[in-house]
Amino acid sequence: MKIGKQTIKLENTPKILNTSSMVGPKEMQGPLSSYFELHTDDIFFGEKSFEKAESKIMKTCVDNLIAKNGLSKEDIDYIFAGDLLNQCISSAYCIRDLNIPFFGLYGACSTFCEGLMLASLFVNAGYAQKVIATTSSHFCSAERQFRMPLEHGNQLSPTAQCTVTASGSALIVPKDVNSDSPYITYVTPGKIVDMGIKDMTNMGAAMAPSAYSTIKAHLQDTGRSIDYYDAIVTGDLGIIGSDILKDLFKEDGLDISEIHNDCGVLIYDKDSQDTHCGGSGCGCMASVFSGYFYEQLKTKKLNKILIVATGALMSPVSSQQGESIPGIAHAVAIENEV
Amino acid sequence: MKIGKQTIKLENTPKILNTSSMVGPKEMQGPLSSYFELHTDDIFFGEKSFEKAESKIMKTCVDNLIAKNGLSKEDIDYIFAGDLLNQCISSAYCIRDLNIPFFGLYGACSTFCEGLMLASLFVNAGYAQKVIATTSSHFCSAERQFRMPLEHGNQLSPTAQCTVTASGSALIVPKDVNSDSPYITYVTPGKIVDMGIKDMTNMGAAMAPSAYSTIKAHLQDTGRSIDYYDAIVTGDLGIIGSDILKDLFKEDGLDISEIHNDCGVLIYDKDSQDTHCGGSGCGCMASVFSGYFYEQLKTKKLNKILIVATGALMSPVSSQQGESIPGIAHAVAIENEV
Repeated sequence: MKIGKQTIKLENTPKILNTSSMVGPKEMQGPLSSYFELHTDDIFFGEKSFEKAESKIMKTCVDNLIAKNGLSKEDIDYIFAGDLLNQCISSAYCIRDLNIPFFGLYGACSTFCEGLMLASLFVNAGYAQKVIATTSSHFCSAERQFRMPLEHGNQLSPTAQCTVTASGSALIVPKDVNSDSPYITYVTPGKIVDMGIKDMTNMGAAMAPSAYSTIKAHLQDTGRSIDYYDAIVTGDLGIIGSDILKDLFKEDGLDISEIHNDCGVLIYDKDSQDTHCGGSGCGCMASVFSGYFYEQLKTKKLNKILIVATGALMSPVSSQQGESIPGIAHAVAIENEV
Repeated sequence: MKIGKQTIKLENTPKILNTSSMVGPKEMQGPLSSYFELHTDDIFFGEKSFEKAESKIMKTCVDNLIAKNGLSKEDIDYIFAGDLLNQCISSAYCIRDLNIPFFGLYGACSTFCEGLMLASLFVNAGYAQKVIATTSSHFCSAERQFRMPLEHGNQLSPTAQCTVTASGSALIVPKDVNSDSPYITYVTPGKIVDMGIKDMTNMGAAMAPSAYSTIKAHLQDTGRSIDYYDAIVTGDLGIIGSDILKDLFKEDGLDISEIHNDCGVLIYDKDSQDTHCGGSGCGCMASVFSGYFYEQLKTKKLNKILIVATGALMSPVSSQQGESIPGIAHAVAIENEV
């Protein structure tokens, strides 16, 4: 049921039965390494190209999710997937091999929450019993897609973020499935917000206003206050974007600094890992949610969280043509009790 | 409610309240010209780039859909949109200006049916009252995206298709809205089918097996026979792809030649327009359905149709890396009586 201006209440509170995460070598050197289920030390993951490696990381992550729940791929009703590559080839080649009816998504780095929203809305409406949402990104495929080939050896701007090599996947089921898994209670699909940022190396600044817009809409629509949640987790605003988000709320007289976390800030050690403003990419929230935050929910260290994946909807072509960077953010409320 | 292996029955039968279509100059020289609502004779549509022109065509098409139903953009709950461009920039820049909560999709040329499925499932579940699905494509932006810049002046292969410069949009509302508009009764999301075709200039051959797979699944799931429908309409298989589809059904002992139509075949005059195997692109089914077939339904010349948009999920990068072309097709059943 739609409530307020853009939020949907999931009256049947579907569950996130389980998650799966896989990361690359750099992410395994970061502070969250113990939370990631699978990893590879080989940035090519045994493949001949970065794009094929990314697709195989997603496939390995999804295969693991299916297998560890004692399921086979035929048991999955639908899969929602997306990535950052041109024409979303990481997802397409992954899901070709899975043979599951497929909805392709593109929401840049917001795609994990976009998929989670749609998967949970499908289960909530009784359209399906088992739906997977997954996304991936890869540092090397993203660099040559959006910036420069690695061979170019260009220096990163201090505002830049490092695309995470990772995938995360979540399996959504009806609430009556026997498990103490957390529920999805509300989703707030975002509007595009574009404040005119044109700097492709400052994604955090481009995306922060959209995170602000969606979180604010979510709170207004649900009547909840900021402190209802144990944590409000953005996807990949990074250090600068997170500061902007906090400043925007400060202008409303709200201090979110205690409960705000950003997956892009959490995934790397900023002092030792040379990742500038932090991590980014479709795989950032996907892996950090599926690895770290899902564990925090299961162990009741956190009981009510709002995850807000943020995306920058430009392309190199639109930037070359002088366009600014449109941002979008999608929010999903996840709670241990309903 | 899910029925069979991959189909969802829409028990609340949402309506396609209205559609809107806009095409470019070449499409206005084709046999369906009288059915398209809007057109431009300027391939740049007053913009400085083909990409900006494409986005403006989508925006004009959606604006028209909203305005002609006496609505404002604030009345629209959600919009599902996608296009063929890298990072879907046609949709992103269109919807930035619309300020409607947005789900970005990528299903290549299958995206129109992907959006129509999700929009109608949202309305069916009571998540929204007014949802728009839209897609666009542009010959010139697609050529430089997937093939060669136009300045290169390369010759097209005889199996090639011509990307349609067009957009189509549909407004989905609950069935109790007073209007004699057609209903959406079933949707069948497709699986990826890849028969190993690697020729980027023969999309019809790459996509035909996925159309066959989805139509067959739809018929099995619903228990309907081919002749239940007045027309089975594929998106952009073109001449060769349509022949392959008919051959595949012939192997099952089924003759679909009388009721099969393909938007890519219908949109151009093959003898006079030098479009080789016909039209293709996200805008092909979008404009031909929104222009021609919606009119056929409203005037009761057709009462039960199955539209099946087909997509080729490769990118130039995956083709350069030696990958074959994964195909996908999504089917939507539209009927005047329920």
